[in-house]
Amino acid sequence: KGEDFTKGDIIIKKGTFIRPFHIGALVSLGIDKIKVFNRAKVSIISTGSELKNLEDDKDGIIDSTRPMIISILKENYSEPIDFGIVNDDPDKIRKKLIEALKISDMVVISGGTSLGNFDLVPEAVESVAKPGIIIHGIAMRPARTTGIAFNGKIPIIMVSGFPVAAYIALNLFFREFLETFYSTSLNPLPKIKGKLTKRFPNPPGIRSFVRVRVFKDNDTYMVEPLRLTGSGILSTLTKANGIMEINENSEGYDEYSLVEVELTQPIEEVNNDAKNIS
Amino acid sequence: KGEDFTKGDIIIKKGTFIRPFHIGALVSLGIDKIKVFNRAKVSIISTGSELKNLEDDKDGIIDSTRPMIISILKENYSEPIDFGIVNDDPDKIRKKLIEALKISDMVVISGGTSLGNFDLVPEAVESVAKPGIIIHGIAMRPARTTGIAFNGKIPIIMVSGFPVAAYIALNLFFREFLETFYSTSLNPLPKIKGKLTKRFPNPPGIRSFVRVRVFKDNDTYMVEPLRLTGSGILSTLTKANGIMEINENSEGYDEYSLVEVELTQPIEEVNNDAKNIS
Repeated sequence: KGEDFTKGDIIIKKGTFIRPFHIGALVSLGIDKIKVFNRAKVSIISTGSELKNLEDDKDGIIDSTRPMIISILKENYSEPIDFGIVNDDPDKIRKKLIEALKISDMVVISGGTSLGNFDLVPEAVESVAKPGIIIHGIAMRPARTTGIAFNGKIPIIMVSGFPVAAYIALNLFFREFLETFYSTSLNPLPKIKGKLTKRFPNPPGIRSFVRVRVFKDNDTYMVEPLRLTGSGILSTLTKANGIMEINENSEGYDEYSLVEVELTQPIEEVNNDAKNIS
Repeated sequence: KGEDFTKGDIIIKKGTFIRPFHIGALVSLGIDKIKVFNRAKVSIISTGSELKNLEDDKDGIIDSTRPMIISILKENYSEPIDFGIVNDDPDKIRKKLIEALKISDMVVISGGTSLGNFDLVPEAVESVAKPGIIIHGIAMRPARTTGIAFNGKIPIIMVSGFPVAAYIALNLFFREFLETFYSTSLNPLPKIKGKLTKRFPNPPGIRSFVRVRVFKDNDTYMVEPLRLTGSGILSTLTKANGIMEINENSEGYDEYSLVEVELTQPIEEVNNDAKNIS
C-alpha cells in the first residue's frame, strides 16, 4: 500500500517484545504468522524439612516463598514448573535438581543457601551442575545469600527461603536472565524520583534495597523508608509501594535528598480535600 | 505466627491489584482463597464497508485497528469479545451494538466517528444508548474524533479507524475506565524525563501526543520527536519507544527542554564502544 512502510523496511527486529502496535503493523501488511519464542520454562524447588504446603494437614511452616516465586515467574512471561518442597536431604535435592534441569530453561531453588554450615543446596548444585556455582554471596541487603550457578547454558538461581530476600533477588536477577534467554530488552519498570522524608544511612560496600512508601504531597513525591525488621517480613512489601536502591559506594542519603524508586504498587495521593468536614 | 502481621491488620485492601508479595502474604497466613473481580468483558466492533479481515479472500483494506485493539485489551487485564467488521449500515451497526451491550462491561467501536457528515457510529450509539454520548470530539491530536458514551454504567468508547489515533485514545481513556470498573489503581506506566533534541511547537488549545525516540547519550536521556505524517501511520508507533504529552496550555518546548515521556518500548543505548574498528 506504500503509505506506511516501504519495501526493505524492517518492521520488527528479532528479539522485539511484541506490543499492540506491532500486531497492527503486521496485520496491515497481511502478515498472519511470525516466529516467537516459547515461554521460558522455569522450575522452582523449595528446600526445608520444616516446610509444608498450604493445603497439607500436618505440622510445619507454610511455604509462602514458592507460591510467591511462581507468581513472579508468571508476571515475567515465563512458564513455572512446580517441583514442590524437598526435605533437607542432599540426595533428594540432587535428584530433584537433575529432574528439573532436564526439562527447564532456568531453575530457581529457595532455602538452604545460608553461608553457614547448612549449605545443602550449594553442595547439591555444585555436585550436579557444570560449570557449577559462579557466585555465592552478594554484597547486597537483603538477599546477601543469593547464589548463581550454571549447568551448561541453564542458569540456576539460589535464593533465600525468606520471601522478601527471594523477591528482591529475583526482581534484580531474573529479568536479566530472561532478557538473555529471549534475546530481547524488556520494557523498563516504572520508576519515580522523590524526596526522602528522613535521613537513611547505608553501610559501606553494601547495595541496599529499601522498601519505601511513596506518596504525593501537593506536587511533590515523598519517599518514606519503612521500618525494617527482617527479610522474612512480607508486610514490608505489601505495605510498601516502592523499592529504593542505594549504591554500595554511597553512605546513604540525607533528609530531603532526591532519590529514585522502583514502583511496585500505585502511588497514594495525600488528598486533603478528601477529609470529610462534618 | 505473630511475627509478620498482627491481629486486626488489613493484609490487602479491597481493590488492590494482586502482586507476587500479596500471594506470599496470603499463603503465609494460611489463606487459600480470596474473592477477585472477573476480567472486564470488552466488546470490539469495527465499522467500515471498505474493510476486510486479514484472512478474507476479497478486495478491501485489511482491518488492522481491531486486532491492535484486541491486543491492547489483553495487555490491560480484560477479556476481548470480537464482534468483527460491520458495514456502513445504520441498522447493522445498531444491531451489533445492542448485542454487544448485552454481554459486555465496556464496548469499543472503531471507525465512522469523524466529525463530518458520515457520523454513522455516533448516530447508532445515540439511538441505542441511554444517556448516550457525553463527549464527541476532544481537543487532542491525534484522536480528536474520539467519543465517549454510556449505556447505564457501561462505557462505549468510539475511536478512529486510524490505528495510531485509536491507540492514543485507548491508552489515555481505557485505563481510567478499567480502574473505575475494578475499583483499583493500576500500577503507573514507565515514564522518563529527558532532553528534547529539537524545538517542538504546539498549537494552542490542543493536547498533543507526540511519538518520540528516547535514547541514552552517555548519562543523559535524549528525546527525539519522530516526523509525523498522519494518524494512520503505524510505523511512527513501531519506530517510537515513547509518547510525549504536551499540555494544551503549552506553546510547545524549546530545544533541550526537559520533557516527560511515557515509554512504550525499551530505551536504546547509544553505545560508541559497539562500533567495530576494522
